[in-house]
Amino acid sequence: MDVVLFLAFLAACVAAASTGALFAPGAWYDGLTKPWWTPPPLVFPIVWTVLYLAMSYAASRIGAQAATAGAPVALALALWAVQIALNTLWTPVFFGLHRMRAGLVIIVLLWLAVAATTVQFLRLDLVAGLLMLPYLLWVTIAAALNASVLRLNRA
Amino acid sequence: MDVVLFLAFLAACVAAASTGALFAPGAWYDGLTKPWWTPPPLVFPIVWTVLYLAMSYAASRIGAQAATAGAPVALALALWAVQIALNTLWTPVFFGLHRMRAGLVIIVLLWLAVAATTVQFLRLDLVAGLLMLPYLLWVTIAAALNASVLRLNRA
Repeated sequence: MDVVLFLAFLAACVAAASTGALFAPGAWYDGLTKPWWTPPPLVFPIVWTVLYLAMSYAASRIGAQAATAGAPVALALALWAVQIALNTLWTPVFFGLHRMRAGLVIIVLLWLAVAATTVQFLRLDLVAGLLMLPYLLWVTIAAALNASVLRLNRA
Repeated sequence: MDVVLFLAFLAACVAAASTGALFAPGAWYDGLTKPWWTPPPLVFPIVWTVLYLAMSYAASRIGAQAATAGAPVALALALWAVQIALNTLWTPVFFGLHRMRAGLVIIVLLWLAVAATTVQFLRLDLVAGLLMLPYLLWVTIAAALNASVLRLNRA
């Protein structure tokens, strides 16, 4: 088992899983009429934990098959999956929840994921790596904007 | 250029990009104090469109390097990226925006992405494919629950 690869895929799952905590069901969901076969609330976090572990391990097994080109190809694509999940997460947290501090944490993690993806891409293919640089630059600007807006609107 | 691979990565980007429309900045963001170097609003969709195209093409170039194991390895991992992005998207739309109909559209697309990932995984590695089946089953239940809740709470 390629632990690094597994953990990279799991990191993408952590981004997805965090939505369960950030966007809790709450009073609105409690007030909805639900079918009789709705699973009890406690089932969801347990099932999702198992599923995220399973899908990360499954993806790491598939990634291991790209072994002829070396582990980096699979790792590069796993890191790409991490960044697209974090990218999907930021907007709802910032513009949906108006949580500027949580948004900053996410965009810093996104920056790290994009940087790691870019480094791996550069190692494998110069053109692919260069194509990621404008993205890294833009996330740098976006992170600075998030931090600045947080600082200017503390009141 | 592997068009199918490019389009698979682009599909993950479409999930991420949709947050821009679903969670629009609105009055809250307009009312925030922003630094003088904040880019004008129109810049964001233009830049993001270019960046999403660039990162999808970059990933498809990297994926093409897994060619010795056949294109399916890279395609399988690209589909995995699509499902984790859609997975990240559903919760904010359903529990954040309370948009049950948009949630249903997303979870149906998630089901298709998980099904496609599972098929590709099964082709490459039996264990990896089998590990995805509980996820496919659970998304089936979750989609049925979303559809049922939408139907029962139309008023």
